[in-house]
Amino acid sequence: MELITWVVPVAGIAAVLFALYLARDVMSRDTGTPEMVAVGDTIREGADAFVKRQYTTIGVLALVGAVIIGLVIGIVETAEVADVESLAGPPIGILTAIAFLVGAACSMASGIIGMFVSVRSNVRTAAAARTSLVGAVQVAMRGGAVSGFLVVALSLLGVWGIFTAYETFIPGVGVEQAPFVIVGFGFGASFVALFAQLGGGIYTKAADVGSDLVGKVEAGIPEDDPRNAGVIADLVGDNVGDCAGRGADLFESTAAENIGAMILGVAAFAIAESAGWPNPEAWIFFPLVIRAFGLLATIVAMFFVRGSETENPMNILNRGYWVTTILSVAALGFVTYVMMDTAGTISNGLPVWVWFFFAGVVGLATSVVFVYITQYYTAGTFRPVREIAEASKTGPATNIISGTAVGFETTFVTAIAIGIALIASHWLGSQAGLVNAEGNDVGGIFGTAVATMGMLMTTAYILAMDTFGPITDNAGGVAEFSRAEAHTREITDRLDAVGNTTKALTKGYAIASASLAAFLLFSAYIDKVNLIIGNQIERGRTDIELLTSVNLADVGVFVAALIGAMLAYFFSSLAIRAVGKTAQSIIVEVRRQFREMPGIMDYTQRPDYARVVDITTRAALREMVAPGLVAVATPILVGLLLGYQAVAGFLMVGTISGVMLATVLNNGGGAWDNAKKYIEAGNLKDDAGNVLGKKTDAHAAAVVGDTVGDPFKDTAGPSLHVLVKLLATITLVLAPLFIR
Amino acid sequence: MELITWVVPVAGIAAVLFALYLARDVMSRDTGTPEMVAVGDTIREGADAFVKRQYTTIGVLALVGAVIIGLVIGIVETAEVADVESLAGPPIGILTAIAFLVGAACSMASGIIGMFVSVRSNVRTAAAARTSLVGAVQVAMRGGAVSGFLVVALSLLGVWGIFTAYETFIPGVGVEQAPFVIVGFGFGASFVALFAQLGGGIYTKAADVGSDLVGKVEAGIPEDDPRNAGVIADLVGDNVGDCAGRGADLFESTAAENIGAMILGVAAFAIAESAGWPNPEAWIFFPLVIRAFGLLATIVAMFFVRGSETENPMNILNRGYWVTTILSVAALGFVTYVMMDTAGTISNGLPVWVWFFFAGVVGLATSVVFVYITQYYTAGTFRPVREIAEASKTGPATNIISGTAVGFETTFVTAIAIGIALIASHWLGSQAGLVNAEGNDVGGIFGTAVATMGMLMTTAYILAMDTFGPITDNAGGVAEFSRAEAHTREITDRLDAVGNTTKALTKGYAIASASLAAFLLFSAYIDKVNLIIGNQIERGRTDIELLTSVNLADVGVFVAALIGAMLAYFFSSLAIRAVGKTAQSIIVEVRRQFREMPGIMDYTQRPDYARVVDITTRAALREMVAPGLVAVATPILVGLLLGYQAVAGFLMVGTISGVMLATVLNNGGGAWDNAKKYIEAGNLKDDAGNVLGKKTDAHAAAVVGDTVGDPFKDTAGPSLHVLVKLLATITLVLAPLFIR
Repeated sequence: MELITWVVPVAGIAAVLFALYLARDVMSRDTGTPEMVAVGDTIREGADAFVKRQYTTIGVLALVGAVIIGLVIGIVETAEVADVESLAGPPIGILTAIAFLVGAACSMASGIIGMFVSVRSNVRTAAAARTSLVGAVQVAMRGGAVSGFLVVALSLLGVWGIFTAYETFIPGVGVEQAPFVIVGFGFGASFVALFAQLGGGIYTKAADVGSDLVGKVEAGIPEDDPRNAGVIADLVGDNVGDCAGRGADLFESTAAENIGAMILGVAAFAIAESAGWPNPEAWIFFPLVIRAFGLLATIVAMFFVRGSETENPMNILNRGYWVTTILSVAALGFVTYVMMDTAGTISNGLPVWVWFFFAGVVGLATSVVFVYITQYYTAGTFRPVREIAEASKTGPATNIISGTAVGFETTFVTAIAIGIALIASHWLGSQAGLVNAEGNDVGGIFGTAVATMGMLMTTAYILAMDTFGPITDNAGGVAEFSRAEAHTREITDRLDAVGNTTKALTKGYAIASASLAAFLLFSAYIDKVNLIIGNQIERGRTDIELLTSVNLADVGVFVAALIGAMLAYFFSSLAIRAVGKTAQSIIVEVRRQFREMPGIMDYTQRPDYARVVDITTRAALREMVAPGLVAVATPILVGLLLGYQAVAGFLMVGTISGVMLATVLNNGGGAWDNAKKYIEAGNLKDDAGNVLGKKTDAHAAAVVGDTVGDPFKDTAGPSLHVLVKLLATITLVLAPLFIR
Repeated sequence: MELITWVVPVAGIAAVLFALYLARDVMSRDTGTPEMVAVGDTIREGADAFVKRQYTTIGVLALVGAVIIGLVIGIVETAEVADVESLAGPPIGILTAIAFLVGAACSMASGIIGMFVSVRSNVRTAAAARTSLVGAVQVAMRGGAVSGFLVVALSLLGVWGIFTAYETFIPGVGVEQAPFVIVGFGFGASFVALFAQLGGGIYTKAADVGSDLVGKVEAGIPEDDPRNAGVIADLVGDNVGDCAGRGADLFESTAAENIGAMILGVAAFAIAESAGWPNPEAWIFFPLVIRAFGLLATIVAMFFVRGSETENPMNILNRGYWVTTILSVAALGFVTYVMMDTAGTISNGLPVWVWFFFAGVVGLATSVVFVYITQYYTAGTFRPVREIAEASKTGPATNIISGTAVGFETTFVTAIAIGIALIASHWLGSQAGLVNAEGNDVGGIFGTAVATMGMLMTTAYILAMDTFGPITDNAGGVAEFSRAEAHTREITDRLDAVGNTTKALTKGYAIASASLAAFLLFSAYIDKVNLIIGNQIERGRTDIELLTSVNLADVGVFVAALIGAMLAYFFSSLAIRAVGKTAQSIIVEVRRQFREMPGIMDYTQRPDYARVVDITTRAALREMVAPGLVAVATPILVGLLLGYQAVAGFLMVGTISGVMLATVLNNGGGAWDNAKKYIEAGNLKDDAGNVLGKKTDAHAAAVVGDTVGDPFKDTAGPSLHVLVKLLATITLVLAPLFIR
């Protein structure tokens, strides 16, 4: 192993230690007034209860999944198809099952620890807000960063660890074989992410919608009022969805895309080896190393999260983001220069590494572009949100129509930006002159992989900003509950507004990375299929050919593509409906408490918050099963019925369709949310210039839009991110099943 | 030409004559009370004004389009690529432009005449409803059938006429060349349909939403109240959208799919010729003949539209539909037997024609399946609509969420049904053993073409049922306006409810035919591309290969596919936004009339209906330009930037995405509409068993859903049908432009 690859475990461990340091730092902070502590404890208890039940369920599902995967692979990966013949049958089944379990366990661990810190940071953020804005930002950001660092570090260490273990200890597994053998890790991560995001997404929005409907609409008490038994569930939900859910989502992204990039690196490895370049393995290790440097850049950036009391808190966070990005560009240059050592080969006028450096920069630039696209479409200062607010004047119907139009519109820049990024990084990569023994250029696809890795360098920081969201949201709830001083609430309100933006940005980032990675994961699937078919041909099979094209003009591929496009809608339909059903359980319980505990309304009786949390948890976990099963079963059925080429078409068009629909749901939901906030802030005026604020019909219309957007942007949209990556990992792992 | 092909002009002319007979019959009917005549005249004048302005605009656009197309084709279809070398350059440009103009003119003529009869049938239906339900059904259905027959007959005669003219009079154009030379006809039809559907769809929903908002919401007067100056525009709009718009939509379907099927027939022709089968031309003429028999079957079926006064009117219409379907099956058997004469060749145990007969039956069965799917999702008797109605109890937000979930859900059966139909008809066709000189099976794709043609046999009847919708809707308006007797209004209300169902069914049918045809049109595009490339290779070009696969794994194809998926959303966004802007113009004008003509409210002053109609017309035509341009420009840009293979991917995934989104919008909108009607009919009850009918909060919530659904189901959804077919015809015609 080259010296530079040691940076992987070093950076991974450093990030874990840094996360522990941040966690300690946060925990040592002031917890505020006794009232704050009491509310914080209630939220924490609810969250702990959810985490315990949720991860027990997911753990059991993952165990069952591992056994099934192990059996299936053990049966279908026979000596005829296995890459390492000595591992054919049960051994490869066991290795895959272990990789799956390790992936699942790492994802679960990062989710659990992140939640642990997140639900302890909220009360400390509220306490800090009593004295300082910057202090509160730092507590919330550090609490969020614990999640961010752990997710990325565990994903990095996990992939590196299982790769190194298999490569070192399993006979026959060299660097070229190992990336294929560890794909189970990505599948395990996807599997956990699917249920974490679905369960969390259903929980959070059911609690939100349910408690609002019964509290605000029926009982006529304000949002976040302590008399509403569903309010704690709502506060717990913020952590569950945005911290644990999005964490699992990006854990999966980094893991799966890392492994996919390593698979593509195998082709580059072969070229480097035959060209006699130094350290051909570097092409396979490159994704790990680049991510390690991304982690280091983020650690440095955390020290730049500072500013003045009078500043817009978003600027404070942006400062850190830009430091991460700029350091990442520098690191990208260094790593490509050192690792892509081609003994001085010049291709198209430039050294090989320069082409890939630019491809990586394309990825980093794409993430910046998406951050700004999301802001344009979901922040109140621009045309889309203002348009929705204006439409609210004529009632809820025009609000919804306008929001839908905005949501649909956002696909335009999204598709164009992704298209440009893919074509640019592919072109840059193809200029590097990596041509394999069969005369095919492999540099283009590797260029898209480098771009994806470049984009993922900033994941830890983005995720920290994301978890900043639920922490500040909760801090606001704590301040409200504990009837904190006005200036404290003012600060928590400002942070909450920033948190809304950062949560939206993370979704844009997650979508962009999923799209950019689609092409790479798809190519990895084709590599895997051709590895299997190549082995079959080598071992005497004559009725099969290498997959050189995924032909949409083939009726099976076309129908599979149609089903892929449908899946995004159908899955979303199930997820949205699950929110409705879960919300019903909450409504029934809160109504019961109002009825049977008459002291609640005059504050003489404390509502049974824990019972609502428990009921919501159980309902959410029950309701996540149907969409989860559909997500897992559809690719398998398509593969069994229509074959491996059709699966590729299914995967591609399913990904495109999922990305587009997620864009619509995330941005439409975000825009509705902020149109409501725009009106609440007094920005909407009638023809005579009077402010149309809270308690006007326009505001009521905007509340309808916000409620509609909730399950779109926090349940269905984020679950679609996970779905598209799950499709990629499941087909990658089960490829041997589809080739007959 | 074989004897049987004479059925084409005979059936076409017979259908035109029959339409004239029906029109005369309708016009000779009683026009009711003087009040009815007065209202009817007002609607008619408004519709005439719209038609005049709309078709003048479209005519000018079509002329410009024809000149541009002619120039582009004249420039790019050089001697190097032209199929008929003697026509290379300007001659082929002129022929294409003429075909484009004839297609545009036929589509416009059928739209104009259909509207002419439709707006004269409404008052006569209202008059007939004074004495008899069956009588009213017959007037409305015959009025609708005028449209139905004209659309299909003019499309049939147009394709046949231009085909025969070019084949007979243009030297070098034989039966194998003619289908390629007449593709301009399909593009002309698409071009007109795009603007007719967009303009009509924007007009109808802007008038609906605009007059409701200002009348019901602001002025507090009932829907369809004569004091509302926008009401006549609303009644005009029903004709404009459902009669003219859907007519143009299905004109395009029948024309484009017919030509596409003839292009695929060329491959079968070559096989038949080399096998020495009698009448090889029959494989090219088959689509025309099968459609001609469909027309004859529909003429017969019109005499079965009868029943008893106490019967559900839907049964009366269904009777005719089933007669059409059963006669079509018989005709399909006869035509395949006669035309697919393979001198007794048996393939896979059955005569060749039998395989294609079954493929055609698959098409007919698919249309029946879609009729029932649509009913399930949009009629009040089933789960989906009831679910939305229940969700209305907790307000507009849950109504919208539930309706969205239902809309998304409908993609499931749609995709599965289309998938099965495609695979089944492809498999049946592939059993027929049509293998070309290169050893490729062409029967499979021809099987999907036969299925599409089978499905299109019932188009005239379906379209008659569709136009029945606006006629009965208008009849209800006329009865309301003229304060007709209670029993008359009761009958018109019943017919209106049936009309809602038939309008929804037609959309389902249009979507199904567009999906089934997608594969065929796509294959025709590939045939055209290969014809061009084949000619280039023959004439010495060496740097190009035949297009044997549309490879999604190619980055250009993938990005094009992504743009295709985006286009459906972006185009819908523009269409939905256009409705909002046009509605604003109406609101401003109606408000002005209320303000400046104070006599309106106490009935002493007549509102200026014509001015609102005029303003709506102009606004709708202005607003249709942006989405129209996007639809036309995007495929051209993709083709120029990414090349001909990428265009194929764009076309396929754009079609899939458009079909799925149209399904969501049409069915979601229909379900919202009927959830409102379900509540109005007193079917929703609270927990205590009390009816939650009109004027309850639940009803208000359902009205929001209905209003949201309006632009979805009547503007964006139907415009997407047209979009997907336009993509097919535009790429087919401009293929030479994309090959460089």
